[in-house]
Amino acid sequence: MKAEIINIGDEILIGQISNTNAVWIAEQFNLLGIPIARMTTVADKEQDILDAVEAAFEKHDLIIMTGGLGPTKDDITKKTLVDYFQTELIFNQEVYDRLNGWFTSRGRVFSEVNQTQCYVPANCKVLMNNWGTAPGMLFEKKGKFLASLPGVPYEMINLMSHHMIPFIKAHFNLPPLVHRSFNIEGIPESDLMKTIESWEDQLPPTVKLAYLPSAGIVKLRMSSLNEDGQAEKLILAEAEKLHTIIGDEIFGYEEETLESTIKELLVNRNLTLTAAESCTGGYLAHKLTSIPGISSVFPGSFVTYDYWVKTDILGVKKTTLEKYGAVSREVVIEMALAAKAKLKTDYAIALSGIAGPGGGTPEKPVGTVWIAWATPTEVLAKRFEFPADRAGNIHRSYQKSLSILRKLILGLPLKKELWEKDE
Amino acid sequence: MKAEIINIGDEILIGQISNTNAVWIAEQFNLLGIPIARMTTVADKEQDILDAVEAAFEKHDLIIMTGGLGPTKDDITKKTLVDYFQTELIFNQEVYDRLNGWFTSRGRVFSEVNQTQCYVPANCKVLMNNWGTAPGMLFEKKGKFLASLPGVPYEMINLMSHHMIPFIKAHFNLPPLVHRSFNIEGIPESDLMKTIESWEDQLPPTVKLAYLPSAGIVKLRMSSLNEDGQAEKLILAEAEKLHTIIGDEIFGYEEETLESTIKELLVNRNLTLTAAESCTGGYLAHKLTSIPGISSVFPGSFVTYDYWVKTDILGVKKTTLEKYGAVSREVVIEMALAAKAKLKTDYAIALSGIAGPGGGTPEKPVGTVWIAWATPTEVLAKRFEFPADRAGNIHRSYQKSLSILRKLILGLPLKKELWEKDE
Repeated sequence: MKAEIINIGDEILIGQISNTNAVWIAEQFNLLGIPIARMTTVADKEQDILDAVEAAFEKHDLIIMTGGLGPTKDDITKKTLVDYFQTELIFNQEVYDRLNGWFTSRGRVFSEVNQTQCYVPANCKVLMNNWGTAPGMLFEKKGKFLASLPGVPYEMINLMSHHMIPFIKAHFNLPPLVHRSFNIEGIPESDLMKTIESWEDQLPPTVKLAYLPSAGIVKLRMSSLNEDGQAEKLILAEAEKLHTIIGDEIFGYEEETLESTIKELLVNRNLTLTAAESCTGGYLAHKLTSIPGISSVFPGSFVTYDYWVKTDILGVKKTTLEKYGAVSREVVIEMALAAKAKLKTDYAIALSGIAGPGGGTPEKPVGTVWIAWATPTEVLAKRFEFPADRAGNIHRSYQKSLSILRKLILGLPLKKELWEKDE
Repeated sequence: MKAEIINIGDEILIGQISNTNAVWIAEQFNLLGIPIARMTTVADKEQDILDAVEAAFEKHDLIIMTGGLGPTKDDITKKTLVDYFQTELIFNQEVYDRLNGWFTSRGRVFSEVNQTQCYVPANCKVLMNNWGTAPGMLFEKKGKFLASLPGVPYEMINLMSHHMIPFIKAHFNLPPLVHRSFNIEGIPESDLMKTIESWEDQLPPTVKLAYLPSAGIVKLRMSSLNEDGQAEKLILAEAEKLHTIIGDEIFGYEEETLESTIKELLVNRNLTLTAAESCTGGYLAHKLTSIPGISSVFPGSFVTYDYWVKTDILGVKKTTLEKYGAVSREVVIEMALAAKAKLKTDYAIALSGIAGPGGGTPEKPVGTVWIAWATPTEVLAKRFEFPADRAGNIHRSYQKSLSILRKLILGLPLKKELWEKDE
C-alpha cells in the first residue's frame, strides 16, 4: 500500500507559504506505517489538478488532497473532482444546518456564496467539518481512495484526526507498528552511529532503527511490527540496553523537547530557574515560556545586552567586565550568580557570546559563546564555538544551555572532555 | 515557459523535515516571472526519480532538482540521471582539485567514497560547488533544461544564486518584471481589499497586484512588465497613490520586518527601547535581537513572569497588582514606565496577558493581552483579544506591540477606534 499527498494552491507554488500540511500528513502516515511515495503540489487549475489525480490513482492506493475548497471562484477543486468522478453536486441538509448555525452564532450572514458549500458531490462520503466551513469529501474508485480536505491547517488536521485516520485504520490492513523515539542532544549523527553500533547490530530483525537528525538534535526511532503482540516488550528490552550505552544523553522521548523536559524536571523537584541572556537576547526565555505552566518554576529573567545593564541592573562587577570582556568565563559566572541571587532561584543560566555576523575577533570569532550554570551548590562555565549564522548560533546556545542544565539537575556525569578544553 | 521543482528525499516524505528548498526556489522564480507549474517530491528510488523526471520533461521547460547527491550509496540521483540521459561518468580534474583542497584545508581525509564525487556525467555542464562537496549538474534535452543540485539548503541557495539564476536570466527570454512590495500589519486582507478597491480598479492593466497574507501581515505586491522601460516609473507613481490611502499602515517594503523597521527608526533617530514582558516571555526581545546591530538601541529588557518579579525587580506597586490584577491597563502602564526608567531608554513596551491554554476567565479569556507603550512624553495602553493558541497569541502580541510603536515613533495618528474600545 502506498499513499500520495496532493496539495493545491498557488501560494505554495510562488513560495509565499511553506507546505506545512504535507509535513503534518507525512508524519502521521509515517507513524501509521503507510509510505508516502510522492508529494505533488499543483495550481488551482482544472487540468493540473486532473493530471495530478490521474497520475496518483495510476500508482497509489490512498490520496490525500488539500486546498482549493473555499467558496470563491478561485477554488475549483470540488468542481474538478465532480468532473473526474463523473458525478454531480447535490444539496446536503446536514452541511446546511451546520453552516447555518456556524454563521448565525458568529453574527455573520450565511451568504449565497457560502451556501454553495452545502452542495457536495453525489458519490462521495461527506466528512463533516466542525472546524470551518468547507466539508471534506472522501471518494472511492476501484478500491482506492481519495480524500479532499480544506487547505487551512487547523481544519485539515481536525478532519484527518477525527475522520480520515480512524477511517484509514478501520479500512486498510495496516501493519500494527509500535514506535519508541529517543531524543539526544550533543552527539553528531556519525558519532552516535559509532557509539551504538554493536547494539544496533544485535537488534532483532523485526526492529527497525531510524536516525532522524535536525539542527543539534538526533531523534532515534525504533519501530517494530506488532504481529505477535510482543513488539512493545521487545522494544522496551532494547530500549533498556540502549540506556546502558547512552542513557545519560537521552533527554526525552517522542515529542518531548529540551524545554518540556526541563520544565518537568523542575516541577517534579520543586526547583526554580532563571536566566541572564546576552547573545541569545531572550531566546532561551522564549523557548522556556513556550511551555504552558512554566510560570511555577520560571519567575522571569534578564536580557542584558549592554555593558552597563550587566553591571547596574544585574550586578556584574565593572572591574570583571573591564578585565575579561563581556564574552568570558568570569563574566558569565558573575551573570549567573547575580541572576540566581536576584530572582532567588535554585538554578540560573547565563549566556554571553558573539552571535554574528559582526563582532568577531581572532581570539573570539563569531560563534564564540560562554555559558555558565549556577546550581544550588556550584557554578560551572564552558566556552563553545558554534559554526553557524546568527540564528543558528543563538539556537545552539539555547540547546547547549538546557542540555547541560538537565545533566546538572539529574547529577549526571558531564563528559570530561567537555570541560577540559578550556581548563 | 513553465518550470517544475523536483525534490528528492525520504526525510521529506516521512515528514521529518519541511521542504524549505522548494519554498526558496519558488520565491526566486516568482520574482523572475517564471511560473512553477508543479512541485514533486519523491524518494531516493531510481524508478520514482525517473518517473518524475519524465513527467516533468513532458510538460515543462526548466526543471530544478534537489537532493540525493551525497557520496553514500543511498544517494542515487547522479546514477539515475546518467541512465536517463544515456551518458557515462567521467573524471573531472577541476572538481578533484577543489575537493582535494577542501578536505585538506579542513584536516580531513579525502576518502575514496568522497572521490566518487569527482566523476560527473559526460554530457552535463558542471556547476562548481564552492560551498560543499557535491557539484551541481546542468543537463539539456531538446532545448529544455534540468539542473540537479545538492539538497543542503545553503549549498543549493549558493548554486542557484551563482550559477543557475544567472544562467536562466541569460538563456531564457524572461519577462523583464519590476516588483515593489508593501508590508502591512493590522488590516485583514478583506478589509484591505475594500480600502484600496478604487485604487486597485484604476491600476494600469500592465500592473498586477498580489495579496500575500501571512499571520497578521499582508504583503501587497505590484508587478509590471518593463517592456518599454517605464515600469519602474509607473509603479512608483502608483505607490505614491497607494501611500495617500494607506501610507500610515505600510511598515516596510520588500523583505523588511517589523523588527528591522523598528531598528532602523531607532538607529536613525538615536533613540533607545526596552521591554518588560510577561505573557510573551522574551519573544519580543528575541525578535528584536535577531536583527544584527540592535545592541546600539536595545540595551536589554526584563522577563517578569511572577508577581513578585514585577514588584521587587521591576518596581510595579504591590497595591496596583492586588487591585487590578496582572493583566490590566494599570499594571502594564507601571511595567512600561518602570522598565523605561530602569534601563534609561526613550521607549518601553510592556506586555501582560493570558497566552493560554490555561488561565482564562470569563472577563479575561485566553488571548486577552494588555500592551503599554511608554514614549518620551506619554504612556498608552490597549487591550487586545487574540483568537489564537499560545504560540499564536504570543506572536500577535509581538506584532501589535511593534506595529503601534512604529506609529508612536513616527507620530502617526493611531486609528481612533483602536483606543476607544476600552475607554
